[in-house]
Amino acid sequence: MDCIEAILGRRSCRAFTNQIVEDEKLQKILTCATYAPSPVNKQPWEFIVVRNRAYNHKLQEEAEKVKSYIAERSKWKWVSKYKVDFISQAPVLIIVVGDPSKNGAEQFLNTPVNGYKQACAAAIENICIAAHCLGLGTLWFSLFEAKSAREIFSIASDKDPVGIICLGYPAKELVAPPRKAVCEKVQYID
Amino acid sequence: MDCIEAILGRRSCRAFTNQIVEDEKLQKILTCATYAPSPVNKQPWEFIVVRNRAYNHKLQEEAEKVKSYIAERSKWKWVSKYKVDFISQAPVLIIVVGDPSKNGAEQFLNTPVNGYKQACAAAIENICIAAHCLGLGTLWFSLFEAKSAREIFSIASDKDPVGIICLGYPAKELVAPPRKAVCEKVQYID
Repeated sequence: MDCIEAILGRRSCRAFTNQIVEDEKLQKILTCATYAPSPVNKQPWEFIVVRNRAYNHKLQEEAEKVKSYIAERSKWKWVSKYKVDFISQAPVLIIVVGDPSKNGAEQFLNTPVNGYKQACAAAIENICIAAHCLGLGTLWFSLFEAKSAREIFSIASDKDPVGIICLGYPAKELVAPPRKAVCEKVQYID
Repeated sequence: MDCIEAILGRRSCRAFTNQIVEDEKLQKILTCATYAPSPVNKQPWEFIVVRNRAYNHKLQEEAEKVKSYIAERSKWKWVSKYKVDFISQAPVLIIVVGDPSKNGAEQFLNTPVNGYKQACAAAIENICIAAHCLGLGTLWFSLFEAKSAREIFSIASDKDPVGIICLGYPAKELVAPPRKAVCEKVQYID
């Protein structure tokens, strides 16, 4: 698939079929993840690939718990109605685990920046685009406590589970949410 | 260009020619940026496109200043030798400005997460990949103080200049820095 088409065609997928994700596709997607840029090429990421639904169910339970107090704190009405069944449906979860000890020089700024988090986010975007161009759907999921994710997936306490990607074949056609026009988002200094 | 090829072929570019970046290409790249995913589709980004080298020079001066104290704080020997001339060379700078008021529900976690920063990082990665597939080179630059970037580019104090992308035609062929093998970075839970 053409690259621009893949970037513009990627959608968040919230319904997956049971179809198994081919290992060849999974390896391509993971390779793309490792080709994200990172400060000083520290590659501050690790990927936990989960293909055992017992773990999906534990993560969904965590998400349900989190949803209930987020609904209360945010006062956003959609939160309690937001279904997270896609977590249990997804045949693959990829936990993107960042290593805070692998920041670049930006950690020494007067206002320090966590470059490892940005690099992990870029790796996640690569996963989402690569998956789309291989006919797969993704959801970049972030409604979980890092502490709980560490417990569920046995992640060391000094590592940061930056994001979780639900991956699988989409169960329905995906609709693009509207985007603001580029001209509303860009300012020129010429 | 094929999508997987584009993701694997993107490189950090640190030498640009004077060739002007065509407006059509720039618009495609900016459109790709706006197609990154964001929590609750809040699109928490704005893009400042700079094509006036007076600003490049100011940013380079800032980078030189930052380098000197980062070299001291980090004790990393490469920092003082790291040339940032590519900043003045780049015919285009894109400042990716995040809006901290546009976080998603993850801001209400017990350990709050700044989803807007992750979304901006995904937008930056889209810029880098789209540029590569259009024959352009990019550098994701982060050695600047947010405060200074706000002053140079007249950014409001409540906005966060998450990253700056130097964009232009590469002056030389780009070499891929080595990547760890996927098997070293992946763990399976089956």
